Amino acid sequence: MNKIALAIHGGAGTILKSEMTAELEKEYRNGLQNALETGWNILRKGGNALDAVELTVVELENFSLFNAGHGAVFTHDGKNEMDACLMDGKTLRAGAVAFLRNVKHPIKLARLVMEKTPHVLLAGEGANEFAEEMNVEFETDDYFFTDFRYQQLLQARENHRVQLDHTIDELQLIEEETQFQTNPKSKIQNPKSLGTVGAVACDKDGNIAAGTSTGGMTNKKFGRIGDTPLVGLGNYADNLTCAVSCTGHGEFFMLGVTAYDVAARMKYKNLNLEDAAREAIEYLTEIGGEGGLIAVDALGNVALPFNSAGMYRGFVMGIGEIIVDIYK
Amino acid sequence: MNKIALAIHGGAGTILKSEMTAELEKEYRNGLQNALETGWNILRKGGNALDAVELTVVELENFSLFNAGHGAVFTHDGKNEMDACLMDGKTLRAGAVAFLRNVKHPIKLARLVMEKTPHVLLAGEGANEFAEEMNVEFETDDYFFTDFRYQQLLQARENHRVQLDHTIDELQLIEEETQFQTNPKSKIQNPKSLGTVGAVACDKDGNIAAGTSTGGMTNKKFGRIGDTPLVGLGNYADNLTCAVSCTGHGEFFMLGVTAYDVAARMKYKNLNLEDAAREAIEYLTEIGGEGGLIAVDALGNVALPFNSAGMYRGFVMGIGEIIVDIYK
Repeated sequence: MNKIALAIHGGAGTILKSEMTAELEKEYRNGLQNALETGWNILRKGGNALDAVELTVVELENFSLFNAGHGAVFTHDGKNEMDACLMDGKTLRAGAVAFLRNVKHPIKLARLVMEKTPHVLLAGEGANEFAEEMNVEFETDDYFFTDFRYQQLLQARENHRVQLDHTIDELQLIEEETQFQTNPKSKIQNPKSLGTVGAVACDKDGNIAAGTSTGGMTNKKFGRIGDTPLVGLGNYADNLTCAVSCTGHGEFFMLGVTAYDVAARMKYKNLNLEDAAREAIEYLTEIGGEGGLIAVDALGNVALPFNSAGMYRGFVMGIGEIIVDIYK
Repeated sequence: MNKIALAIHGGAGTILKSEMTAELEKEYRNGLQNALETGWNILRKGGNALDAVELTVVELENFSLFNAGHGAVFTHDGKNEMDACLMDGKTLRAGAVAFLRNVKHPIKLARLVMEKTPHVLLAGEGANEFAEEMNVEFETDDYFFTDFRYQQLLQARENHRVQLDHTIDELQLIEEETQFQTNPKSKIQNPKSLGTVGAVACDKDGNIAAGTSTGGMTNKKFGRIGDTPLVGLGNYADNLTCAVSCTGHGEFFMLGVTAYDVAARMKYKNLNLEDAAREAIEYLTEIGGEGGLIAVDALGNVALPFNSAGMYRGFVMGIGEIIVDIYK
């Protein structure tokens, strides 16, 4: 029997122990622990990687402190727009959704895109129409309203800025909302922290899968889509190499084609998972990006590299010991 | 001085000489020729690759027989929704738009996303709001209305199917519009022909760039996004490897991460442009995809591999001889 393995993240960024309360840290750790238990129970009972990833991400979407599903941040218009992607390393099929509204579990809809349509990515109203046709669970705006997120929006609006998620200390302001600048060098700055959730798993048959889900950027405008719903950029899985879920400043993961970059380094340079994942993050650093990723291969190896101060993360393998960590 | 080079495509698919009239073929060849002349004139006067690519794609967007800009196909609702992506191999920056309406030149807006925002991809109404803020040229629905395309929609609607572009003989019907199937194997079929335009260029300084633009699939629903606006999937450029623009059945180019796959094979396997491009198309074939790509490297080499019966394509290099071709 193949070694089973599961790894998850709840976002990466400037997460400093000095700025965390003991109570909040406990809450985060519990959220990660619960999600890992859900996925691990599926895998150890012989369940497949795709189901384990989907239901682990569902747990993370339920957890209001992470920026996905229930805890999604607000756009400029005070709405919650969510993106998700699920990829099956066995079949190399993927499904993804972008700009989804009021769907309780975007990752479940991503799976339906994969299984019930000839497409990979559906976005906006069209994706919502598809959700209605598929009869998935919807929630009213109230469900997605969390005061924590709304205060973030009010503060971001007041500052006329867009912000990525996980701001534990002061807000990291990354974009003038109304004033665009012309020097490319001056425009992209690293946010202090960044929000997405993700899971990767390897099952007893050596099949692997990856899932990623996000609520995007607080106060975002202009229909920005990040790396999360994009195959090869924020999420990727191929049994022959690895399953990867990324989190961080999405634009750089897009330009670095980061998720597939891990796979390509394994395929074409014959690197092992750990070296390929580390090199992909080194390349991300080189091009100015901040964040991290989680990865598994079909042998049940796990890698969780990141270049930010912290990444909410955890993994289970071997005898089933659950490891959860936040800081470097 | 570096060798300058320019390559373009106007879509790939089942384009058979037996089904083409001499008159129509001449029109296609003229369209390709004009676009190549535009870009070549910029390059040979010392202009940069990014400008050459942008303005070559503008010409292709102006040409009503190709599925982009003026010639964009109709969605199910009788609208024209357009996607485009532009990437600069010198800076590794990119800009892209999806679901754009009434913007005359989507490729120009993609450039503005790259240069005036901290984002890579803007979609839907948000992208249109950005277009208004940038004061780009808009056109009324009439401009995008071409009878040829409208007849395609009526025929596709009648058959309750979605179709990709370039159907010279009978319509290739690839998707039940209202009825989703459950067996993944049965769902993705290769369309007979596929529509996108693209350009890649290498300038006198050895800088390279790639641009791609499309009107998507006739009769598409549910907000489907293909590979065209997605960095690394349908379009990619990095001076250290290559500039690539893809055309074909988008879902497979997404799952194959095809544009970046060419670059990765150069970076990690030390292949030359031609071998890397050929191998990427071989891999695409392996996973069931149909189409082609155009690519240049920073030395001014050009590759134009495809696995379909034809690809509207052309290139100029060396002394400036313009080569245009359609069939295998």
